[in-house]
Amino acid sequence: MSLSDIFDPNGIAVIGASATPGKLGNDTMSNVEASDTEVYPVNPSSSGTVFGYEFVDSVGETDADLALCCVPSHLQPDVLEECGEAGVGAAVIFAGGFAEMGGEGKELQDEIAAIADEYDITVLGPNTAGYAIPNEDLYGSFVPRIREVESGNVGLVTQSAGVGITMSFQLAREGYGISSMVGLGNRVNTEFADVIPVLDDDPQTDAIIMHVEGTEDVTDLLEACRNAETPIAAFKVGEHDIGDLTRAHTAAPAQDNTIYEDGFDRPGLAAVSSTTELIDAGRVLADTPTPDGPNVGIVTAQAGPGIIVTDYLKGTGATVPELTSETHDRLDDILQGITYAENPVDTGRPMPEFGDAIDAVARDDNVDIVIVYEIYEDSLGYPVDELEELSADVDKPLLFTVAGPDHALEDERRQMEDIGIPTFDTPERGAQAVATLIESISGEE
Amino acid sequence: MSLSDIFDPNGIAVIGASATPGKLGNDTMSNVEASDTEVYPVNPSSSGTVFGYEFVDSVGETDADLALCCVPSHLQPDVLEECGEAGVGAAVIFAGGFAEMGGEGKELQDEIAAIADEYDITVLGPNTAGYAIPNEDLYGSFVPRIREVESGNVGLVTQSAGVGITMSFQLAREGYGISSMVGLGNRVNTEFADVIPVLDDDPQTDAIIMHVEGTEDVTDLLEACRNAETPIAAFKVGEHDIGDLTRAHTAAPAQDNTIYEDGFDRPGLAAVSSTTELIDAGRVLADTPTPDGPNVGIVTAQAGPGIIVTDYLKGTGATVPELTSETHDRLDDILQGITYAENPVDTGRPMPEFGDAIDAVARDDNVDIVIVYEIYEDSLGYPVDELEELSADVDKPLLFTVAGPDHALEDERRQMEDIGIPTFDTPERGAQAVATLIESISGEE
Repeated sequence: MSLSDIFDPNGIAVIGASATPGKLGNDTMSNVEASDTEVYPVNPSSSGTVFGYEFVDSVGETDADLALCCVPSHLQPDVLEECGEAGVGAAVIFAGGFAEMGGEGKELQDEIAAIADEYDITVLGPNTAGYAIPNEDLYGSFVPRIREVESGNVGLVTQSAGVGITMSFQLAREGYGISSMVGLGNRVNTEFADVIPVLDDDPQTDAIIMHVEGTEDVTDLLEACRNAETPIAAFKVGEHDIGDLTRAHTAAPAQDNTIYEDGFDRPGLAAVSSTTELIDAGRVLADTPTPDGPNVGIVTAQAGPGIIVTDYLKGTGATVPELTSETHDRLDDILQGITYAENPVDTGRPMPEFGDAIDAVARDDNVDIVIVYEIYEDSLGYPVDELEELSADVDKPLLFTVAGPDHALEDERRQMEDIGIPTFDTPERGAQAVATLIESISGEE
Repeated sequence: MSLSDIFDPNGIAVIGASATPGKLGNDTMSNVEASDTEVYPVNPSSSGTVFGYEFVDSVGETDADLALCCVPSHLQPDVLEECGEAGVGAAVIFAGGFAEMGGEGKELQDEIAAIADEYDITVLGPNTAGYAIPNEDLYGSFVPRIREVESGNVGLVTQSAGVGITMSFQLAREGYGISSMVGLGNRVNTEFADVIPVLDDDPQTDAIIMHVEGTEDVTDLLEACRNAETPIAAFKVGEHDIGDLTRAHTAAPAQDNTIYEDGFDRPGLAAVSSTTELIDAGRVLADTPTPDGPNVGIVTAQAGPGIIVTDYLKGTGATVPELTSETHDRLDDILQGITYAENPVDTGRPMPEFGDAIDAVARDDNVDIVIVYEIYEDSLGYPVDELEELSADVDKPLLFTVAGPDHALEDERRQMEDIGIPTFDTPERGAQAVATLIESISGEE
């Protein structure tokens, strides 16, 4: 059993394909037709074409090695059996109505599992909205417009595909992309522990972010995390008692959350507690070097937001160290006694020397990570040239928190992203991203 | 002393006005020229015009009742004295270098205070980026492009003008506006307690949001909050030890944070802990009716994000009650046994009956507040018609958390806002807004 037929299929059968807009089997066709791979719409009740592909009566008539199953749950055993007979290696089962329902649903899922086992079929789902690999134009999902999600370097593996979709669209809205998004659903035979190594090996994926409701497979999950070389951030839902909900959703077992909290508390892995923190964690872990320690240098052009950043960081594993006397001397020269030249360094307003002030703090031996806050002003812009030189010289994470008239600052924001300086909106998102970096180097090996 | 010359001036002098782009006195002119009021650029070293207004040598030559002071701190006493002689009633002092610096700065501020007292001048600042009233095209600020901030129904009063600017631009970026933004800075004689009643009386302002670093005037601040009929949300910075920073910023005194925590724990006021929560608090308090209680009905089209919302709410003052048997019967009819019809109600996917499911939950007697989560699908859209009818009938806060392809959902999102249903991105922002509503009815009178 392998995930290669999911990540790199040679032919895709859409079982239950439909020519009627709004139907699951039509939405799926509208996504999958983007692929370079041959697509086979399978539906014995349909004829003619859909998105230019001719309907066929059964999967047995195709050369597909991947099946996207758009049929209701009670038809699924027969469909999977046909897939097995036809030599299909992987199936994505969208339908719900399996283990998450208990009783007959559980029996149905056991039946699926047995068929998958008999024919050696890798099953994603059931009860999933599927997956997306924008870089390959591969969208094994029924979610309308999922093709608008852009290509990037963060890989998502989410127990709820709905959460994966939500985060993928949020990243797109904010101008960022994903390498892959894999929604696991009920995990009949594809688990976190199966997907993590694939993302870890993927050259497009520079960080992995996980949404976890709970899995019997927690030991394997944690081992897969330990073995991964790619940094990982995890959002384990269930701080409070919601076991009845997660069971009814993706058949997640009732578990003590501390299993995850303890397991995630190790270098290479950061635990976060919201979807926004999770996507920001993905971006900062993907784009910046691993920090040497928890010492944060803060440079701000406006005191108020800088104080919010500092206050937030003081409640995390961050340290806000004293700067060296060399840095103080440099800052005194640059800022000429202006405002607050301790850490945080507050220049009081944007100024032409702002880039030099960042440079001084970033080169300080006491500083492992730098976070900058500046409201954009057209006449000065952001110190992109200074930052480019600095980031070529200094192997430390540099983060830039932006504010101001959105359209005006867009170009320079993009330029900073391009040189490996992730940018964030709002003081708290910047501070949380710093806290994530520090968490990713903390804990027991 | 009154704020009327700030909120409704008859003539504005820009002292230290400049024709050189990028200069504080030029940026200020570029903002203030939007006003219908007569503007007087004052600068004895300049001649000709700037933005079509002729330079004058001194404020004494003008009919201004408001002065925007763009001069360095050491010139400020003379300038303020001239303002007093000229009968100016209010001055905004942008420069820093006063009480926040201690020592001579403190003496300089005392001098300012004495002059203001002698001539009965209302001073905003010093050490502020000023204020903005988009609805009046009045921008008493040097911040470039502040005119891009849109008109809305949330009033901001912030100790740090930088934080006020940050939030105003964030609201604009997300498609929302402000009624006023007032940055207090060092509060020489204009305090929270002076601004809150003005915003409370303002028919444009439906909610007030405050950013507080700390003030000697805390008793008056809390009394002004108690007396206000407009709902208020407050973000008190300083959960951790940052007293040295806030003192160095806006000369905030060292204080125990519990004074504020206790004071803010009353009906009509909600305390939050980030800028994003604060703007969302403003929007939800401005746009929805006061809830009768803390009982939240949750309706979701995708289980995973709905579970995140529920998990978050369980850590707040919210209750997630059982639905009545009548509601269960209605939901059984609507959803035909689909997925999870308890609270949260999970329809498993968007469907034509989604609006009916929301309607059933919103009309439940056990429910005081409704939050909805739905990833947008073009073929179904959002249930705007059903929500319009519902919100006309049912006087409860309805919140809609959206996700999906951003551009596609924009129109319907705007339609929901127009009928008094605030919309939010991400599960946690929706859940936090619900928590804010509940906090706004909690605590001792």
